[in-house]
Amino acid sequence: MSESESSCQRIDGLATSKALYAEYKERVAELKEKHGQAPALAVILVGERKDSQTYVRMKTKACNEVGVEPVEHTLPEDVSEAKLMEVVAELNADPKVNGILVQLPLPKHIDADKVVQSISPLKDVDGLTEANAGNLFRLGMKGRFIPCTALGCMLLLKRYNVPLEGKHAVVIGRSMLVGKPVSLLLQSENATVTMCHSRTKDLPSVVQQADIVIAAIGKANFVQGDWLKPGAVVIDVGINAVDDSTKKAGFRLVGDVEYASAVKVASAATPVPGGVGPMTVACLIGNTINAFELAHKN
Amino acid sequence: MSESESSCQRIDGLATSKALYAEYKERVAELKEKHGQAPALAVILVGERKDSQTYVRMKTKACNEVGVEPVEHTLPEDVSEAKLMEVVAELNADPKVNGILVQLPLPKHIDADKVVQSISPLKDVDGLTEANAGNLFRLGMKGRFIPCTALGCMLLLKRYNVPLEGKHAVVIGRSMLVGKPVSLLLQSENATVTMCHSRTKDLPSVVQQADIVIAAIGKANFVQGDWLKPGAVVIDVGINAVDDSTKKAGFRLVGDVEYASAVKVASAATPVPGGVGPMTVACLIGNTINAFELAHKN
Repeated sequence: MSESESSCQRIDGLATSKALYAEYKERVAELKEKHGQAPALAVILVGERKDSQTYVRMKTKACNEVGVEPVEHTLPEDVSEAKLMEVVAELNADPKVNGILVQLPLPKHIDADKVVQSISPLKDVDGLTEANAGNLFRLGMKGRFIPCTALGCMLLLKRYNVPLEGKHAVVIGRSMLVGKPVSLLLQSENATVTMCHSRTKDLPSVVQQADIVIAAIGKANFVQGDWLKPGAVVIDVGINAVDDSTKKAGFRLVGDVEYASAVKVASAATPVPGGVGPMTVACLIGNTINAFELAHKN
Repeated sequence: MSESESSCQRIDGLATSKALYAEYKERVAELKEKHGQAPALAVILVGERKDSQTYVRMKTKACNEVGVEPVEHTLPEDVSEAKLMEVVAELNADPKVNGILVQLPLPKHIDADKVVQSISPLKDVDGLTEANAGNLFRLGMKGRFIPCTALGCMLLLKRYNVPLEGKHAVVIGRSMLVGKPVSLLLQSENATVTMCHSRTKDLPSVVQQADIVIAAIGKANFVQGDWLKPGAVVIDVGINAVDDSTKKAGFRLVGDVEYASAVKVASAATPVPGGVGPMTVACLIGNTINAFELAHKN
């Protein structure tokens, strides 16, 4: 490790998520004692996609780790949209279920957005419904259920005491799940935010001005170290597979930022894997606990 | 008028709103013929504030101009929140009412946000409900009811053929009514957008980079001409009263941008008054017609 590299702080999403799980475990234990039941997260998996199965497994494992009850619903690949909507409606009505997650993508014959929008906003722990988008638009970090990856980025910045007020944040990517919500959240924390995307001209010069860079475009090693302002903080949301014959799997995971060159310039950066990824799952669990508290408030 | 000033195009909101009214008038006539009734806009005025009365009068006048039926509800200053909510609920349920507008501000004993959020999202022609904010977040310019002032800014840019794709827009102000929605709308039209506000550092140097400046902060003559990049397009949302002993009223209205210095640098700019102001009322009428069409779609 070179001298310059060692001066870049590693923003450790894995360690941060573990700290969150420890807090969640305590909160769940308290809630269980108070209300006689644990928060429950329903996870709906349609079909047998290997990647989706892996994600569902990670999520149920995280539930188990903190004492949240996972309620798995596995439906066949050819399930009808109507049947799937019915399952969501039943879970919406079930007072024992606090969070509902539909693992995406869904098979092509199903209108995924229609299904997702039918989730009760009070159980939409992924923050995907229009109602919760509007809530975030209005309330920022005080929003009801903030999309997990966007929230994960914010919690990393907060846990690492990265100042936001008056800082210039550049967000690359404008997805519903990350770019757009994280832009509004950074703004609600008093950062000046520039929202960039595929049509942005001369992106390197825009990034050059950023105190904080959030990269969420899904392009391997796209943002180069020499684009960064010295001392910038980099949050890399990308998880991209690139060919690597030295690995057993034949590939390795890299972010949207070229890590090796970035750490020579940045003051702090998230690695991939081990950065935002683990935070996303942790935030899902956090949102589920919040949903339980919301349901038991009255 | 100096040579440099004359090269700045006046973005005429009054003329543009008149053109819109002419289009609306035709649409309303067609809708009336097709459905046997005209779109109706309910306007609720609480108390006797002179400014609110003026605004309501402007809105009902605009309705009358295009054939939209204004339904005025005037309630006493001391009306209870419950009674006001009841009026909104009745209008929500009334199939003859297409748009509902609660003139703000409301007296202090009433929770204005609670009242506004109780408006049906399908009749919320001001675009103030959480549901419609979420809809705009997701759909951008295709959103159901875009807040009228934000929409007015966008329509001026469109009607004056200001290119947005790949351009850098700087939005000053982050209100729910203008700054936030207009930022998302400009992004949805492929502009790179920087969202600035009171905590932004070195605002002049940020504005210096803008191809398009939207000023919506409510500070008289705040943005100076020498902040602008030569050729920038300026949309001034501010309407501020400043003392002026030469006027009968003792004041005159100015924008958030110092117009005299701005027109020496900008390629196009909205005047105040006669810029965004008239567009706001026109967009309210447009939204009401859209609400009527929405209600009659099925």
